[in-house]
Amino acid sequence: MPINPEAVGATSDPWTSSWTSKDSLLYALGVGCGMDDLAFTTENSMNVTQRALPTMVVTLADVSAMFARIGPFNPFLLVHGEQRITLHREVPPVGTITSTAEITAIWDKGKGAVVEVTARSVDGADGKPLFDTVMSAFLRGEGGWGGDRGPSGPRNAAPEREPDHVVDAQTSVDQALLYRLSGDRNPLHSDPSFAAVAGFDRPILHGLCTYGFTGRALLASVCGNDPARLHHMEGRFSSPVMPGERLSTSVWRTADDEAVFSTSGGDGRAVIDSGLVRFS
Amino acid sequence: MPINPEAVGATSDPWTSSWTSKDSLLYALGVGCGMDDLAFTTENSMNVTQRALPTMVVTLADVSAMFARIGPFNPFLLVHGEQRITLHREVPPVGTITSTAEITAIWDKGKGAVVEVTARSVDGADGKPLFDTVMSAFLRGEGGWGGDRGPSGPRNAAPEREPDHVVDAQTSVDQALLYRLSGDRNPLHSDPSFAAVAGFDRPILHGLCTYGFTGRALLASVCGNDPARLHHMEGRFSSPVMPGERLSTSVWRTADDEAVFSTSGGDGRAVIDSGLVRFS
Repeated sequence: MPINPEAVGATSDPWTSSWTSKDSLLYALGVGCGMDDLAFTTENSMNVTQRALPTMVVTLADVSAMFARIGPFNPFLLVHGEQRITLHREVPPVGTITSTAEITAIWDKGKGAVVEVTARSVDGADGKPLFDTVMSAFLRGEGGWGGDRGPSGPRNAAPEREPDHVVDAQTSVDQALLYRLSGDRNPLHSDPSFAAVAGFDRPILHGLCTYGFTGRALLASVCGNDPARLHHMEGRFSSPVMPGERLSTSVWRTADDEAVFSTSGGDGRAVIDSGLVRFS
Repeated sequence: MPINPEAVGATSDPWTSSWTSKDSLLYALGVGCGMDDLAFTTENSMNVTQRALPTMVVTLADVSAMFARIGPFNPFLLVHGEQRITLHREVPPVGTITSTAEITAIWDKGKGAVVEVTARSVDGADGKPLFDTVMSAFLRGEGGWGGDRGPSGPRNAAPEREPDHVVDAQTSVDQALLYRLSGDRNPLHSDPSFAAVAGFDRPILHGLCTYGFTGRALLASVCGNDPARLHHMEGRFSSPVMPGERLSTSVWRTADDEAVFSTSGGDGRAVIDSGLVRFS
């Protein structure tokens, strides 16, 4: 059992990163924005101010280096489990942040371990909190040391009624090739030979690309397409998506400022479940 | 008549520019490459070496500053007329060049002027010629000073027979939003309001994006998809293309190392004509 459960609480040194208007445009195209979304896809349209998609924050604070802190493990057996984002204020289309990451949980799930990394990012201009991200990853084969299993059971369950909103979106067969230019170059998402070695018929879409499509669906359905109104989003990756699949996000309003959601693939299976969004 | 025909021969200072692997990937996606073109769209696929599309050179040596040398004119009345590229050797997916531009012709077409700018680029590593580009632009309303009309009449006419190759490609409705990230941010290609002011129903595709699609068709049909085999390509932009149109490139082999071509839009009208390609 090579991973070290004592790594909980380990923190990174603060690091600074920046993004450009072009990064924001490229991210938006990568999650399917187009001519209907000029605020996200152009910087010089008449009477349109460029905005950043809230979900872009997952590309801005890269926590992958934190996984070295838990000890050696087989990266092929790591899958992205859940992703949470909390936005303290609107993320600008051009910016600089200073981030600090912390391993906030390691759970023993028996067949594997769950490692949760939280990154807190402050605005480079005024030092105030801009956003937090919480990524949790499942490491197959790394459990069984008799540790705490952590929370389990259903969360953010949908009410027993029809959804209040359903938003459909089409991914393209080349979607992952575009999304990967926003940072995650894992060939699992682009190289058929590599995907075959990993046991897939063909390269799978980045979970965070599906997450971005889902964020757009939430923006449209409960935030009036205003990114300043989306404050929190969380969800669990429950099935891989193939580039070219149609996605459908169902949203149930549960309070004035809260809704639960799930996203399904072309055949109706859930691809993101246990979704929660907070908005104003 | 505010433009100055005496500007022929004006040269720029040499300038240096660089491009990254990511720039090459983004350009390839912008001209429609996808999962069938991993050498152009990925840098880390197993047993695949990243290559650059030959037509990418049009984005590497930006000659727009040369137009200031011909005197004041209305940039709204400038249209891209013709584009030639000559590759002295294969253009790498990552590189540095030093370029020099020259105004090589100004013709008086009566209703307008044609201005031709030639840029010669040498490899930053060894100083040897890498590629030349020749852009010619038509400036409506700037002609009539009694100058030389320059060459006219048909060039590179197709033989009176069926083409040897026909290659079809589909542009997407969001094609220009992606292509523009390779450099040309003119809102004529992205902003419906701006396009309306310029007299178009909606934003038009970049001529050089159509040129890139056409270059891919030539690469597939006469170069066995090997970019090292494409040495020269020239063509005339004869009609705007709308994002989402289907393109069809017809190629007639006229010698072992030469072919003429034209590209048509979804309704069959020519969008690039007078095309010539040289290859090995």
